[in-house]
Amino acid sequence: MENLIDRLCRRVDAAGHVCLGLDTDINYLPEPFLKEDAADAVYSFNREIIDATLDAAAVYKVQIAYYEALGLKGLTAYMKTLGYLREKGAIVIADVKRGDIAKTAEMYAKAHFTGDFEADFITVNPFMGMDTLEPFFPYLESGRKGLFALVATSNPGACDIEGILSSDGESVSEKTGAMIKETGAKFTDECGYSSIGAVVGCTNKAQTKQIRERLSGVFFLIPGYGAQGGKAEDMAHYLDQNGNGGVVNSSRGILLAHKKPEFSGLGFAEAARAETIRMRDEILSAVKGV
Amino acid sequence: MENLIDRLCRRVDAAGHVCLGLDTDINYLPEPFLKEDAADAVYSFNREIIDATLDAAAVYKVQIAYYEALGLKGLTAYMKTLGYLREKGAIVIADVKRGDIAKTAEMYAKAHFTGDFEADFITVNPFMGMDTLEPFFPYLESGRKGLFALVATSNPGACDIEGILSSDGESVSEKTGAMIKETGAKFTDECGYSSIGAVVGCTNKAQTKQIRERLSGVFFLIPGYGAQGGKAEDMAHYLDQNGNGGVVNSSRGILLAHKKPEFSGLGFAEAARAETIRMRDEILSAVKGV
Repeated sequence: MENLIDRLCRRVDAAGHVCLGLDTDINYLPEPFLKEDAADAVYSFNREIIDATLDAAAVYKVQIAYYEALGLKGLTAYMKTLGYLREKGAIVIADVKRGDIAKTAEMYAKAHFTGDFEADFITVNPFMGMDTLEPFFPYLESGRKGLFALVATSNPGACDIEGILSSDGESVSEKTGAMIKETGAKFTDECGYSSIGAVVGCTNKAQTKQIRERLSGVFFLIPGYGAQGGKAEDMAHYLDQNGNGGVVNSSRGILLAHKKPEFSGLGFAEAARAETIRMRDEILSAVKGV
Repeated sequence: MENLIDRLCRRVDAAGHVCLGLDTDINYLPEPFLKEDAADAVYSFNREIIDATLDAAAVYKVQIAYYEALGLKGLTAYMKTLGYLREKGAIVIADVKRGDIAKTAEMYAKAHFTGDFEADFITVNPFMGMDTLEPFFPYLESGRKGLFALVATSNPGACDIEGILSSDGESVSEKTGAMIKETGAKFTDECGYSSIGAVVGCTNKAQTKQIRERLSGVFFLIPGYGAQGGKAEDMAHYLDQNGNGGVVNSSRGILLAHKKPEFSGLGFAEAARAETIRMRDEILSAVKGV
C-alpha cells in the first residue's frame, strides 16, 4: 500500500484541496436531529455530511474538542466518526493539538494512532520542543501515519508567542517552521513531501510566498478560509508550482452551508456538498491564476 | 465556599507541597491487578493510592494521556478517578495541556470544567497566544476553577522554542511568563495568587530565584522532581517567603515507590504513602533551610 503522504498528494491532484472540518457543534444540527441523544445526533449528522462529500473533499479533519465537550458519549461519537471515515477509505486528520514529552507523548501517540481513536494524521503542538515529536516517529516510520505541527496560526493572538522576534530577526513561527522542516526531512516520501506537515495560517501574501519557499517539502494544513476571512487567491500562494503541497480547511462554512441564501431549498447534506464543490473549484481556479 | 486558589494555598500551608501525579501506566500495576480489564485495574489502583495518600498530598494531578491511550475504557477510568477525588474533597489538576482558540477552546473549557471530565484546575498550552486562555475566563470568574499555563518546562527540548531569545534579550519563556502574570492579575484572590498559575520546571538555581521574583502572584506547578533529577533544595527556591506559591509534582516516584529498596516489604499503597510523606517532609525541611 502507498505511503500516507503520497496518498494525500495524489488525493489533492485528483480531488482538490478541501479539508472538511467536522467541528460538529450540537447547535449546528438541524431540528430533526434534536430528538436524538446529542452525541448520537452528532454522529448521524457527520455520517450524512461524509456520504454527501466523499468525492469532493480531499481529506477530513475531526476537531476532538467538540466531542470531548460531550464527555464519554461525545468521544463515542468521535470514535464512530473516525471509524466511518476509515470504512469509507477517507484520509483523516485528528485535530487534537496534543503536545507533551517522553512517556506522556508516547501515550498520546498510542491514543491517536492505534485503538479506539486511530487517525491517519494528528495535529501536534510543538511548544515544549522537538522532543514532543520523537515519540511519534516509530509510527511515522511505518509510512502509515503523519503529523501536522502548529507553526503559524491564523488567530489574532498568534502574535503573542509565535510572533516574537528573536535576536537574529526571525520570528518564533519561522524558527519553528525551520525545525519542523529539518526534523521531518527523514520522513520525506516519493511525492517530495514529509509525513511531518505544518499548520500554516493565512497571513499576508508576501509572507505566504516566502513561507512556501522556505518550507519546501513541508505539506501545509491551512486554516483561516471563509469564516476566518481567508480567500481562495490567498490560499493558492501556499501551494507549490504543481498546485499541490497543501489542503485548506473549512468547517462551519460547509457544515452550516444550508443557512446560506445561495443554497436555500437544499438539505444540510446537499448544501454541504454544494459548498464543498464551490470551494474546491474556487481554489482550483485560483491556483491556475497564480 | 472559599475560592479555589485560596483553598489551594491553605492546603499547601496545612499539608505541604506534594502534587501526586496519577500518570498511571498499566505497566506500573502490581500483578494482582492484571487479572482485571486494564482500565478497571487502573481505576482500582488509583483508588488505593488516593485512599493511602489523602492527608499527605496537597493536590492530585491526573495525566489524561495515560487514559486516552486506553481508548473509551481508559477515559471511563479517568472520569471515575476524577469523580473519586472530588468525592474525597481533594483538589484536582487535570493535566490535559489543551491549547486552541475561539469556539474550540470554549469546547475544551466545557469538556474539562463541566460534565464527565470536570476538574478543578487544568493545564493549558499557550503557544497560539493569550486568546487560547480567554474562553476559560467565565469559569475562572466563578472562583471555582483555575488554569496552569506552560511557561518553562523541564525537558531537554525546552530550549528549542521556549528558550529562543528575543531581540530584547528575554526568552520566549520569560515573555510567556510575563503575559500569563498580566493576564491572570484580575483573577488574584485573597491569598495573593491568581487562578492562572504557571508550569515552571526545574532549571538552575539562579534562574529559579529570578523567576519567583518576576512572577510574583503566579502560583507554580513544578515538574522535574525525583525521576527527572530535581532536588528538594532546588524546589524550595520556587516558593515565596512564606513557603507557599507552588506545588511539586511526583508521579512515578510515588506510584512505583514499592519497587524502591527502602520501602521493601510494604504494599504499593503503603509505599506510595511513605514516599509521599518522605517527599513532603524533605521539601518542608528544604523550605526552612532557605
